[in-house]
Amino acid sequence: MSFNTFGHLFRFTSFGESHGAAIGCVVDGCPPRIPLTAVDIQGYLDKRRPGQSRFTTQRQEPDAVKIMSGVFTDEASGEQVTTGTPIMLMIENVDQRSKDYSAIKDKYRPGHAGYTYDVKYGIHDYRGGGRASARETAARVAAGAIARKIVPGMTVRGALIQMGPHKIDRARWDWNEVDKNPFFCPDAQQAKFFESYLDGVRKAGSSCGAVIEVVADGVPAGLGAPVYAKLDADLASALIGINAVKGVEIGDGFATAAMSGEENADEMRMGNERKPRFLSNHAGGILGGISTGQQIVARFAVKPTSSILTPRKTVDRYGNETEVMTKGRHDPCVGIRAVPIGEAMVACVLADHYLRHRAQVGEGTAWPFQKPGA
Amino acid sequence: MSFNTFGHLFRFTSFGESHGAAIGCVVDGCPPRIPLTAVDIQGYLDKRRPGQSRFTTQRQEPDAVKIMSGVFTDEASGEQVTTGTPIMLMIENVDQRSKDYSAIKDKYRPGHAGYTYDVKYGIHDYRGGGRASARETAARVAAGAIARKIVPGMTVRGALIQMGPHKIDRARWDWNEVDKNPFFCPDAQQAKFFESYLDGVRKAGSSCGAVIEVVADGVPAGLGAPVYAKLDADLASALIGINAVKGVEIGDGFATAAMSGEENADEMRMGNERKPRFLSNHAGGILGGISTGQQIVARFAVKPTSSILTPRKTVDRYGNETEVMTKGRHDPCVGIRAVPIGEAMVACVLADHYLRHRAQVGEGTAWPFQKPGA
Amino acid sequence: MSFNTFGHLFRFTSFGESHGAAIGCVVDGCPPRIPLTAVDIQGYLDKRRPGQSRFTTQRQEPDAVKIMSGVFTDEASGEQVTTGTPIMLMIENVDQRSKDYSAIKDKYRPGHAGYTYDVKYGIHDYRGGGRASARETAARVAAGAIARKIVPGMTVRGALIQMGPHKIDRARWDWNEVDKNPFFCPDAQQAKFFESYLDGVRKAGSSCGAVIEVVADGVPAGLGAPVYAKLDADLASALIGINAVKGVEIGDGFATAAMSGEENADEMRMGNERKPRFLSNHAGGILGGISTGQQIVARFAVKPTSSILTPRKTVDRYGNETEVMTKGRHDPCVGIRAVPIGEAMVACVLADHYLRHRAQVGEGTAWPFQKPGA
Amino acid sequence: MSFNTFGHLFRFTSFGESHGAAIGCVVDGCPPRIPLTAVDIQGYLDKRRPGQSRFTTQRQEPDAVKIMSGVFTDEASGEQVTTGTPIMLMIENVDQRSKDYSAIKDKYRPGHAGYTYDVKYGIHDYRGGGRASARETAARVAAGAIARKIVPGMTVRGALIQMGPHKIDRARWDWNEVDKNPFFCPDAQQAKFFESYLDGVRKAGSSCGAVIEVVADGVPAGLGAPVYAKLDADLASALIGINAVKGVEIGDGFATAAMSGEENADEMRMGNERKPRFLSNHAGGILGGISTGQQIVARFAVKPTSSILTPRKTVDRYGNETEVMTKGRHDPCVGIRAVPIGEAMVACVLADHYLRHRAQVGEGTAWPFQKPGA
Repeated sequence: MSFNTFGHLFRFTSFGESHGAAIGCVVDGCPPRIPLTAVDIQGYLDKRRPGQSRFTTQRQEPDAVKIMSGVFTDEASGEQVTTGTPIMLMIENVDQRSKDYSAIKDKYRPGHAGYTYDVKYGIHDYRGGGRASARETAARVAAGAIARKIVPGMTVRGALIQMGPHKIDRARWDWNEVDKNPFFCPDAQQAKFFESYLDGVRKAGSSCGAVIEVVADGVPAGLGAPVYAKLDADLASALIGINAVKGVEIGDGFATAAMSGEENADEMRMGNERKPRFLSNHAGGILGGISTGQQIVARFAVKPTSSILTPRKTVDRYGNETEVMTKGRHDPCVGIRAVPIGEAMVACVLADHYLRHRAQVGEGTAWPFQKPGA
Repeated sequence: MSFNTFGHLFRFTSFGESHGAAIGCVVDGCPPRIPLTAVDIQGYLDKRRPGQSRFTTQRQEPDAVKIMSGVFTDEASGEQVTTGTPIMLMIENVDQRSKDYSAIKDKYRPGHAGYTYDVKYGIHDYRGGGRASARETAARVAAGAIARKIVPGMTVRGALIQMGPHKIDRARWDWNEVDKNPFFCPDAQQAKFFESYLDGVRKAGSSCGAVIEVVADGVPAGLGAPVYAKLDADLASALIGINAVKGVEIGDGFATAAMSGEENADEMRMGNERKPRFLSNHAGGILGGISTGQQIVARFAVKPTSSILTPRKTVDRYGNETEVMTKGRHDPCVGIRAVPIGEAMVACVLADHYLRHRAQVGEGTAWPFQKPGA
Repeated sequence: MSFNTFGHLFRFTSFGESHGAAIGCVVDGCPPRIPLTAVDIQGYLDKRRPGQSRFTTQRQEPDAVKIMSGVFTDEASGEQVTTGTPIMLMIENVDQRSKDYSAIKDKYRPGHAGYTYDVKYGIHDYRGGGRASARETAARVAAGAIARKIVPGMTVRGALIQMGPHKIDRARWDWNEVDKNPFFCPDAQQAKFFESYLDGVRKAGSSCGAVIEVVADGVPAGLGAPVYAKLDADLASALIGINAVKGVEIGDGFATAAMSGEENADEMRMGNERKPRFLSNHAGGILGGISTGQQIVARFAVKPTSSILTPRKTVDRYGNETEVMTKGRHDPCVGIRAVPIGEAMVACVLADHYLRHRAQVGEGTAWPFQKPGA
Repeated sequence: MSFNTFGHLFRFTSFGESHGAAIGCVVDGCPPRIPLTAVDIQGYLDKRRPGQSRFTTQRQEPDAVKIMSGVFTDEASGEQVTTGTPIMLMIENVDQRSKDYSAIKDKYRPGHAGYTYDVKYGIHDYRGGGRASARETAARVAAGAIARKIVPGMTVRGALIQMGPHKIDRARWDWNEVDKNPFFCPDAQQAKFFESYLDGVRKAGSSCGAVIEVVADGVPAGLGAPVYAKLDADLASALIGINAVKGVEIGDGFATAAMSGEENADEMRMGNERKPRFLSNHAGGILGGISTGQQIVARFAVKPTSSILTPRKTVDRYGNETEVMTKGRHDPCVGIRAVPIGEAMVACVLADHYLRHRAQVGEGTAWPFQKPGA
């Protein structure tokens, strides 16, 4: 709801700074009896983990997660399962390199949260961004790994579809390619180009932005809650709350502004299993804040990181004008690692709404209805 | 937080359907001793009110608001002021024209929430959209009128900057023009064009989308709360939660994906009153989820309304394939009336964060700090 | 959660002052398709309504409730049913007798909330207690009438078991007597005595306290949520939040302090329908914050009203020492009308927990379990 | 708000089971720049810690707390201070003695939460009570140590005032005695008696209940929020949510039921510093849910622990009737260690309300007011 807790019924509370002892989160509200081990979570953390290619920061963090509470041995299966009580996930910080921060600790990096934390709180852990570090997002990825297990049959996948000004060709979209390149890019040909493009950015000490698309399959119709807890509103909040994200769209998003009502209408026919079949999905699977049963499609824009080698004009915390530049280990395109984070946030929102829906309405739907007198 | 309540400390709970007895909201958490009469609210409602030009629905609703609780006479000034207890605002529905819904009541309109409400709840008040009607947004505008009074010195203004595929020329932006045309458009020349364009859309029985920009001035630095209650995350949720909104941006939004880190950095110098001065505002006034003290800039896309005269393929609630078209009074571009709604939602988010900030940190800031030993 | 909203998933937000235009509430989160008309609610309001005997205030209020939103006609049954959207319940204030408050409006009544409202908010609607009036509790009773329909098979009943220092004889407890005397007293003999006792109190211009017991039958095992949303914690909050309540107990309550572990243990045997049978209910149906399937038993103490004819020392809002006494229409024992209010609050808590339980765990239980290998 | 989070603005989320890797909590919403080290917290944990006298369980737990996040070095003072971000407090479990649970693991202990956890979740960590263990309360005590630092000038103290059926003599109340006996008893003479009484209980393998009183001094007038977030309602919820608590009172509590309105009125005169002076405190410092500026007084009853040596009739998780008794290390009177827990919960509620009040009303009060025209 507020501050450092995300979600309502499926919820997690995160803690930790970039260079503190540990980061992690407490996942609360998880249904009981769901099989869960650290291995289930570690795979997703490894996708987000830095240092896996030359295109992400070289900080060396194993990001090994420990489950500190909330699981117990199921008598029948012998498996570790959730108990319905809080699941604390902890990732100890290993690479807290005793860097010398004296050159930059009092200076605000333009585009970074250093100034706003400082003006708000009157103190700021400047080491590696402190609480504003992308490192915090590991907690989200860990929570998301649990969220994925809650909605039966749901899968959530993400892909990088634009790097800097360069978009992919959607006609070449192949989900199988996503894990075959260091960019989570579904267009193998464009992924090749991204390599050379990003090498250029990196070598120039610059940075670039990206656009990410997250798609959820297998989401039942009916999830969401009018009017201030709409599914799309919660997705937007979740995605724009990721570090460096400046825009979010559902379905055709901004492009719908230029459409006519005729074009934008997702026509309906009857499909299999007594469910409707939609002839298009401009809506991204959400109408009136409630899921339609189609794919949920969300997209978000990540700005270029503020860590660049070119000096920028700034002030320090004592009100003096100065310049700052950022040396050291940084991501030239933070959007890459935003892919697993975006997936995790979408999974958490959907898990939360799945439980919220079950609370108010129970399970299942009687649709299509029996016509009275028929 | 959930369902039909918006906000945390400054919060409102809305009620009512398009064709029920009344709509309105209960505003809770408002600070005491703020002067408030119905007149303060009515002006904003009148901006949103339908039937004011040929470009909005011809439904005739006076939208007269009554304050049913939460104000009392201040002894010293003789004014009506808030008491700190719930303020119930009620707008009685007048134009509940006894339309014959039999032709469409069982059919889902593609792009409309009828199907999702029905599949979720197993019942849906189909008259005029029921709870999913844009009429509910009058409650938001009323709450927003109170929110505007909470942050000292803050003003929130909105403008329509794109209609269908046609954008304004930002070089011609003039806030004074916004109230001089029926579109809340800050570009007088483009507003002229919009007249003929929208006449064409309307006469064709079609509809079009729009993009709205909302700007808040006078927002102090430090509002917002990392990491799951970021100011931008709450703005995104608030704006995408408006009916028919499919995308939202903060500052340069999606355009930042194509920028370099150098371009995107908002450099800082010292300005007046011991505050920093920023040389640009790509961030839209928010860094790390916290306000910088600059203008807050948000933008959102509204899809074309699903109410069109062209028949569309659909199914009915009994699972039969059929066609549907929408006759009657409708907005050809719901984006127009979204301008005062967007303003209201931004005002509510900022009022809420103002109170949340005061809770944790108190009032004022010591920035810039005194250098130790200096 | 905060301020003027009660509950989490089944929740209501109340509004209104004693002498304002109306009081009422918005009920949110109610499951859809529950039959509901004003008649269902009015019966409970009539129990709470003042002026029904010489033992309650003679204020004449019909307390006629109107359902302003959230219901619609079910096609199959033709009944009015809930739609899953907010149900606004409004009770217009009729008897706003234009009393002359000039003698007391600036003076604080000892034991009343006038001082605390004034010191907190700097303003207070003194007419009839304003927001602190017992009149607000009509909103709770109305919400409770809906809550009663949510947990299948649940009934909630209350009884007055002590008036002033005089307790009932629990051996004479007969639920059928509760509606046969003006005190909701289950002991017919003691009810007779209460008549003369309370006549004495009333004629002396004094007031007395009471103890109320509320019992819920048919509550399934498993409702509640460790560790900070325990069912008993929410019941305690709900009951002590009723005006003038100063203590609350679950099951044997304070008496358990004097028991041994042997006495206090509610032993278990197997009962019917594969459910355990408890040999006693010292726990009041709650263990570890979760319902056992037994009767839920809660008890609360109501202090004597502060409205008395004897002058009391006090100060006024300008800091002057003075005296105050309360003339006019008042309840000599507010505990009487607290019976339906207590029932309503218990019903609301149980409805909320029923939905919360369904969210996390779904419906039904597999208990007793199948022994592995058996 | 729900599940495992306590509080609204000052809030903590606890995690951990009796025999898991660790227990602890994440404290969120704490104001920044408050000096904080583990030493500040450890003292309170040591009061709650088992094994300090023969009257509490002999489990050997150092209960050493580590601050894992949320503090940083203040540049000016060199002290560790809070940063306004989440403070994770962790206490590793040391004494997880590999006890053989096979004799009791499938049997429910009457009066214990084992059955209700199992029927709710279908699984239960039976080792030492799992999540229902009193061990979880260490997290509350740790959070409470931070809460104590938030309201300027506030002190919160607790005392055991009844053990089994034996009450203290309030005329002998001496706060200085509380830390001089193993019972936190303010009556030295009765504390002596408690020693022999509790030795008898312990040697008999039995257990007994207790009553605890918590008093907060220095609480400003105006804290609390009508009508569903009353200060007393939140205190009641906080205290009855402590393991084994079955009743709670504010001020004179249940005794007020037997009082007349004249007796119960806390008359007012003017005191020092332009504050009112109350001639009594039957209300326990709270009127209308808002603090009066007097001492806050709350009292709660703790039932005897269900861990006793006498066999009790029960069933097992497979529906078989059987008997159970509890061997091993247990508290004969869990009420003793409830004293620091009760203090902690009261401190957390008051810190939360202090921030909530500041949010809505700001700091300070204008009371007594200037008379218009005077």
